[in-house]
Amino acid sequence: MHVLQGLLQDELPIINDRLARETRELPELVRAVAEHVLMAGGKRLRPLLAILFFRCVSRGTGERVLSASSSLLSSSGESDIYPLACSMEFLHSATLLHDDILDGSDLRRGRTTAHLVYGKTETILAGDVLLALANRLVAEYGDARLSWRVAEAIMRTVSGEIQELEWIKCPTLSQEHYLEIITGKTAYLIQAACHCGALAAGGDEQAAQAALDYGINLGVAFQLTDDALDYSAKAEVAGKPVGNDLREGKLTLPLICYLEILPEAERRETLAWVRALGAAADPGALSAQDTARHGRVVQAVRDAGCVEETRSRAARYIVLAEKALTSLPECPERVALQEALQHTLHREK
Amino acid sequence: MHVLQGLLQDELPIINDRLARETRELPELVRAVAEHVLMAGGKRLRPLLAILFFRCVSRGTGERVLSASSSLLSSSGESDIYPLACSMEFLHSATLLHDDILDGSDLRRGRTTAHLVYGKTETILAGDVLLALANRLVAEYGDARLSWRVAEAIMRTVSGEIQELEWIKCPTLSQEHYLEIITGKTAYLIQAACHCGALAAGGDEQAAQAALDYGINLGVAFQLTDDALDYSAKAEVAGKPVGNDLREGKLTLPLICYLEILPEAERRETLAWVRALGAAADPGALSAQDTARHGRVVQAVRDAGCVEETRSRAARYIVLAEKALTSLPECPERVALQEALQHTLHREK
Repeated sequence: MHVLQGLLQDELPIINDRLARETRELPELVRAVAEHVLMAGGKRLRPLLAILFFRCVSRGTGERVLSASSSLLSSSGESDIYPLACSMEFLHSATLLHDDILDGSDLRRGRTTAHLVYGKTETILAGDVLLALANRLVAEYGDARLSWRVAEAIMRTVSGEIQELEWIKCPTLSQEHYLEIITGKTAYLIQAACHCGALAAGGDEQAAQAALDYGINLGVAFQLTDDALDYSAKAEVAGKPVGNDLREGKLTLPLICYLEILPEAERRETLAWVRALGAAADPGALSAQDTARHGRVVQAVRDAGCVEETRSRAARYIVLAEKALTSLPECPERVALQEALQHTLHREK
Repeated sequence: MHVLQGLLQDELPIINDRLARETRELPELVRAVAEHVLMAGGKRLRPLLAILFFRCVSRGTGERVLSASSSLLSSSGESDIYPLACSMEFLHSATLLHDDILDGSDLRRGRTTAHLVYGKTETILAGDVLLALANRLVAEYGDARLSWRVAEAIMRTVSGEIQELEWIKCPTLSQEHYLEIITGKTAYLIQAACHCGALAAGGDEQAAQAALDYGINLGVAFQLTDDALDYSAKAEVAGKPVGNDLREGKLTLPLICYLEILPEAERRETLAWVRALGAAADPGALSAQDTARHGRVVQAVRDAGCVEETRSRAARYIVLAEKALTSLPECPERVALQEALQHTLHREK
């Protein structure tokens, strides 16, 4: 992991500084909301991926970098990947802000969610401003393919959220449907970050395809690992709350795998209970009886090996993402992109 | 008005058909919400302006039209202004959906607002999807200047809404601040429609500037007329509810003009009352006493000639918009753009 670690040490302060600078320019009413979600931490995965693909693909394109990423709107001709990288974090933050309102979530990155601190009105508007800011930053590169990819990714991300909301109302045991939802709500934006980095570097079709393939597979693996972690005993030992998805009636892969191995009658009864949790007026607020059952089911999912099963499913997507990198120039950034895959798969938080 | 009328008869069915077609492709959960706001009518002012500028400027550029507006993403090379025109209506609808949630509005275009029919969650998501759809349609023209203009307009529109919300909390009698707010929340998107039409036609800098100048001035005049109509006796006779802005504590130009001519003590007392209306827990729901006073103030604003004063202010912006047209080729579309100005100024609904 040492190449990725070194790059992170160099890049994270710059990314955070640029994010802070752009955020300070926002209208006062939404600035605090935007800072609340942006400055609470976060892995900066999306900006980092854009930067790594930009740098890696640039090594294969040489001179073309400057002309492809220079702005049509400014005459500076200077190449700067950070606004594009930051725009990926702004898009992500915008979806988090709106998503937390929809979910009625109380916590995000360990902090009280923005809409509870600043109000729904301010949070809706802050999300809209961040979306528009991201679109503007992207448009300033003068390459409409970047704008198209970002718009498409946002459409698919929101569509994924919509599918998830519908699914919670009436969840089934379809793994295929589950994968479609997580691809939508998580993977497309991660894919867009990779693809935009490659495009801004003036990458050819092969490089662009590598970015698309890496991004979508990493995105799915990332969400699968997230869903596995939500049941993980290690996370619980580390003091992280677990079983949140089940508490809200969200049917993720570990639970689907567990339900599949149950006898028919027990499966049906347990699924009905999960549905009832999702349909509750105040999802996540469990009765004492439900809390006890919740603990038993989480433990049963672990005991049945369904957390490992989910991680091993993630590992298959990691392999596909890794394969996608082979067509890119060998360089430290490619090594970092490989390390990022292993980090995603093995992370414990 | 007969040139504009004729063009409307030709264009409106096509615009509405295209809007309906794009809307049908949306994810199911948000389709109904989008149709609710889109199919409730509306003047289609923004799509129409994009089309008129596109056609008018095209007459001055001839062959260039095809290359400038052909998509980088498709290989068809076909020039079609309708997706761009429709995207302006989608952007407008998205801001209406989110705006009605913020305002807690009950009615829009004579129908119950979407969030009351379909829920806030669905309405927030539908707004996000429409924003992304508009951005994607615009990006498909392969001209990043279009994407930039649209992103900038959305940022300014949302900023205008934010300023308005802040102003309602503590309104002052600053006409300058009022004009800044209405420019933000209304004029920039209208300006973007005109500018994008001119850019898509391959217009030169002079044509683009004409579109920018026409759009911003028409936009301000449009909102001033709207604010005048909210106090208009004629509108009341025609059965339209009047005095909505005052009911919600919104300080618009007719009321500002009226307050300015009141004696100091009465002005201060009336302004305090308006502030109290805006700060009410359920804005718009007036007590019997406030309802009576509301009626008296609306009548007093009329009697003091402040509705006409607001319209005459609008007329000044209309003159500026008309001047902007002089550099464009003489053609039926330019006549229609002139007629649209007169229509805006003299409309009674």
